[in-house]
Amino acid sequence: MEQYNNKYISKAVIRRLPRYFRYLREMINNDVMRISSGELSQKMGLTASQIRQDLNCFGGFGQQGYGYNVKHLYEEISKILGVHKKYNAIIVGVGNLGKALINTPMFEKRGVTVTGLFDVDENTVGKTYGKHTVLHIDSLKDFFEKNDVAIGIITVPRDQAAKTANNLAKLGIKGLWNFSNAEISLEKYPDVIIENVHMGDSLMALCYEIAKND
Amino acid sequence: MEQYNNKYISKAVIRRLPRYFRYLREMINNDVMRISSGELSQKMGLTASQIRQDLNCFGGFGQQGYGYNVKHLYEEISKILGVHKKYNAIIVGVGNLGKALINTPMFEKRGVTVTGLFDVDENTVGKTYGKHTVLHIDSLKDFFEKNDVAIGIITVPRDQAAKTANNLAKLGIKGLWNFSNAEISLEKYPDVIIENVHMGDSLMALCYEIAKND
Repeated sequence: MEQYNNKYISKAVIRRLPRYFRYLREMINNDVMRISSGELSQKMGLTASQIRQDLNCFGGFGQQGYGYNVKHLYEEISKILGVHKKYNAIIVGVGNLGKALINTPMFEKRGVTVTGLFDVDENTVGKTYGKHTVLHIDSLKDFFEKNDVAIGIITVPRDQAAKTANNLAKLGIKGLWNFSNAEISLEKYPDVIIENVHMGDSLMALCYEIAKND
Repeated sequence: MEQYNNKYISKAVIRRLPRYFRYLREMINNDVMRISSGELSQKMGLTASQIRQDLNCFGGFGQQGYGYNVKHLYEEISKILGVHKKYNAIIVGVGNLGKALINTPMFEKRGVTVTGLFDVDENTVGKTYGKHTVLHIDSLKDFFEKNDVAIGIITVPRDQAAKTANNLAKLGIKGLWNFSNAEISLEKYPDVIIENVHMGDSLMALCYEIAKND
């Protein structure tokens, strides 16, 4: 990790790394062991020079005339992205979206384990989804005392998001993955990383492209 | 639209526009009528010069010493993004994620109306969510003959995604919003716009930032 930390890596490059991660994993699953920046560029819809530039940020794993060793590149990118860190996460808000998230293999593939589910609704608390029984949100403090929790996944209604985020920050959460559509900012807890998911942004990008074609 | 289409606008700028859209809407809701690029940059975490550059792509709506007229800018960005086009969408796959999407106000705010729900599961077909009763996927063709559908929202399991996408393309869909985590590509239908949503990418960006802090 540290060797990359001393170097300034732009947010845009970081944002592209999960895509490399996905494509490389697919290649490993298909027994593709090496790839040139040209082939990778075709697959990913980026220019070959963009790819070389991106991967050079991390010390450049490519070799002239050989290309990239897929597995090595995958492992390096996994390390950079913290996949090996094995973070625990809790889901706060077990509505439809919370339930949809519980069941995805997405977490495991990325080294994240969901270890708790929380809600306020009395019809939801006590129900079991996957491996976990939904606990009442009032038991969060107790849960944090007994468990190591790094990530809080916020799938509560929009008007409950700020309060939920503050509670989790107070309990020592390291990062929030926020699906509430409320832009969360925690001035009192500047060390908490916040990733606001705005699915609508992606919908608008789609509408833009459709409108352009129309 | 056309005045922007003749000009090359980078994908990165387009990707940022929905964020401007969100922030500007919030300002309108808070009765903020004008804003300088400096203030906007503070709010959005972009540099002021980045903002001026982005908005200049669309003819530059700012005035020296006055800043941007929030409402005007919002309307122009809405137009560029096709919000005024009022597209109809259907959701194919009414599992937890499909259900979570039905209930969000996200669509209406972005000029998209969900007009149909489809599934294969006999326990799901016939149930009503929001304004619509879930139809069997076999009735898609009939539905397309009677209704104008621009966007197909794919929330089926991963292994059903390619088939679903092909069916919709054959029926004349304009764009696919794909939540299945399978990377969809439609070689036979190059005009269909595909927006693959990879929520895991956002999770990895979060993990990266947490790992950096650790």
